[in-house]
Amino acid sequence: MGILIKEVDVLTQNRNRDVLRGVDILIQGKRIEKIGRNIKGKTEFKIDGRGKLAVPGLINTHTHVAMTLFRGYADDMRFWEAWPERIWPREKKVKAEDVRAGSLLGCLEMIRSGTTCFMDNYFFMDEVAEAVKGVGMRANLAYGMIDIGDAEKRKKELKIGEEFVKDFDGKADGRIGCSFAPHAPYSCSEELLLKAKELAEKHDALLQIHVAETRKEVFDSLKKSGKRPVEYLESIGFLSKRVIAAHCVWITKREVGMLGSKGAKVSYNPVSNMKLASGGVAPIPQMLESDVCVTFGTDGAVSNNSLNMLETIKVGTLLQKSHLWDSRVLNAQQALDFATINGAKALGIEAGSVEEGKLADMFLMELNSPNLLPANSLVSNLVYSSNPSNISDVIVDGKLVMKDRKILTIDEEKVFEKIRKVSEKFRE
Amino acid sequence: MGILIKEVDVLTQNRNRDVLRGVDILIQGKRIEKIGRNIKGKTEFKIDGRGKLAVPGLINTHTHVAMTLFRGYADDMRFWEAWPERIWPREKKVKAEDVRAGSLLGCLEMIRSGTTCFMDNYFFMDEVAEAVKGVGMRANLAYGMIDIGDAEKRKKELKIGEEFVKDFDGKADGRIGCSFAPHAPYSCSEELLLKAKELAEKHDALLQIHVAETRKEVFDSLKKSGKRPVEYLESIGFLSKRVIAAHCVWITKREVGMLGSKGAKVSYNPVSNMKLASGGVAPIPQMLESDVCVTFGTDGAVSNNSLNMLETIKVGTLLQKSHLWDSRVLNAQQALDFATINGAKALGIEAGSVEEGKLADMFLMELNSPNLLPANSLVSNLVYSSNPSNISDVIVDGKLVMKDRKILTIDEEKVFEKIRKVSEKFRE
Repeated sequence: MGILIKEVDVLTQNRNRDVLRGVDILIQGKRIEKIGRNIKGKTEFKIDGRGKLAVPGLINTHTHVAMTLFRGYADDMRFWEAWPERIWPREKKVKAEDVRAGSLLGCLEMIRSGTTCFMDNYFFMDEVAEAVKGVGMRANLAYGMIDIGDAEKRKKELKIGEEFVKDFDGKADGRIGCSFAPHAPYSCSEELLLKAKELAEKHDALLQIHVAETRKEVFDSLKKSGKRPVEYLESIGFLSKRVIAAHCVWITKREVGMLGSKGAKVSYNPVSNMKLASGGVAPIPQMLESDVCVTFGTDGAVSNNSLNMLETIKVGTLLQKSHLWDSRVLNAQQALDFATINGAKALGIEAGSVEEGKLADMFLMELNSPNLLPANSLVSNLVYSSNPSNISDVIVDGKLVMKDRKILTIDEEKVFEKIRKVSEKFRE
Repeated sequence: MGILIKEVDVLTQNRNRDVLRGVDILIQGKRIEKIGRNIKGKTEFKIDGRGKLAVPGLINTHTHVAMTLFRGYADDMRFWEAWPERIWPREKKVKAEDVRAGSLLGCLEMIRSGTTCFMDNYFFMDEVAEAVKGVGMRANLAYGMIDIGDAEKRKKELKIGEEFVKDFDGKADGRIGCSFAPHAPYSCSEELLLKAKELAEKHDALLQIHVAETRKEVFDSLKKSGKRPVEYLESIGFLSKRVIAAHCVWITKREVGMLGSKGAKVSYNPVSNMKLASGGVAPIPQMLESDVCVTFGTDGAVSNNSLNMLETIKVGTLLQKSHLWDSRVLNAQQALDFATINGAKALGIEAGSVEEGKLADMFLMELNSPNLLPANSLVSNLVYSSNPSNISDVIVDGKLVMKDRKILTIDEEKVFEKIRKVSEKFRE
């Protein structure tokens, strides 16, 4: 058992963020047991790490992975036309097996682009969990709840949400965590939001929610309650350390302060926000000033359309620089931290860095690639010039999920076949 | 001789932009001889195209390829501090062999990301040309001229610029075209600009120039001449069909009209403009209204930092949508056209589409990849969710440059070795 990576370069978390050159990494069980020189040991896998960089596995804190099924169906349209016209009618046709297939496909895409862990909310979540289990990733999952003020629906939604948590929290050898996901302040009643919070406390779970993604949402919120979305969530006592708020595009400095003081985390989804023309830009520098833990999400494949976190990291920095007319804003290391150590903090997992004692979630990047040379700055190259073609190996929870670009956990071709089959019925 | 690709999918240029499914492509000499069913013929290479998409080679209309040497040296800094502090001192140390190495490296990066042709201006251009020749790409190259009002320098620059054109135009079996590149309206005197224009006419060559990249440039131009950069170029008679104007971020609708009526082309460089926080956004919809031929450029590796046109295409659409709060602006097909057929038009080459009679410049994309399934829309997947890991084969000028991810024209490892060696001296 175990994995020994020989003579690999490693990004560290020390003060200067030094790179360790040509060290060995010994992985035993789920964890990184030792990082050092000349480590010997009998392990199941031995990887030649020369010319490679060990990078903490990327953590995608907001997606709807099964929506790969609808990739490309709602491009270049108005947000408020795209979903009702192109997505909701198709979602009505979705069966459990489709969600399984779409989730497996999305997981494969994420693994191949260096993501080892993701947070997700959708429906048929048992299927998403089974996909995660089979493919060997780590994930925090929730059933997405909506009541639109309907008490009957609310009861049903909460029941499904809680049963999912009971059934799957801690499953897959601890790789699956569960959370509660009231969809958004505009689609959920105050009762649903508060009941979800109560359940999250009862099960010691996180809360996922979409917040302030569009201007319309802010306008509607002000009209309805006289409060902006985050102000409203604050006023009803919803905000806490358990909350991962996705998007937060249209929030004021005061709302940023509320998120910060309550310890709520933010999932910044730059590619989705740009593609859907949410307008405005999440105020990341203000969030950092208010000590908000910022993380990155890709959002689903309808909104992005890739699940490529390397792209999200780069675009996330570019968008801030461009929007604020300041190229110094959000540097490469900060952006990488959002996708690694901050993601781990937000999801409450002991990962996000390649350090002794941490969970062994990482990927190896081939440094001898034309887009990663010269190696003037490895962090700069990783953030600003890498792409999934550079990723050779992925390890999750101490197990090799991809070795030399080959997925070891499941038969990739079978997933492709299944997707071709199930996607037929969504072609209209 | 020749290449026969069997049963491949092909993006067409017909009115509906249909995709041909499972056709054969016969390439003889430099050109696509035939596209159809059951083509037989004896060719040097036979490629199994099943599960692959033939895409016109991407055309990068603005870069400084040798600047890969300095990748990552000027991140997250102010534009006007980055170059004087980090780049110019290093450029003083640059020798001919460094430019050769940096150019080969950049060419390899471009090939691996689907680019078959690029437009470049820098110095030691003989070395760039030799790199292009060796690696098997197509390029339009120019020596970048600056005089800052110095008549002696002007004379010298024009001499180098013209000699380069005389020596290399039409070389490498016609793969190399040459142009004249007065750097920018602010770094070149009126005399240099007009003399460059005259030489371009004499040699029937194109003109490359940086235009309106920053606000400061517009401010300085107004102060100096009372005219904005494009207005100034128009007033001295510089604009014509020969001009490829890079950036054009800070231009008015009136200036867009001037570019359009003179037939000047634009190279839109969204990633560079965002990373350097040029602020503002090139007014692409106005350009389209004024019939300006818009193309895509990556800019050099100091400004981007990758030379990945697939990324540029996606970011280029996202930036327009986000900036204009309208997700309908610049759709996937339009963006792809910028990078293919428009690039070919701008550079005056018979490429940019996979059609009978055209130059055989194309790449093959593996459709059985998790990020390219389901195949709901091939154009959408190519623009919004592909990445270089999907590219298996690249053909330029009828020759296989990359086959099954292996570069056939040069020894890639030797380029990496050379780069590691020459880049040492730039580490300070």
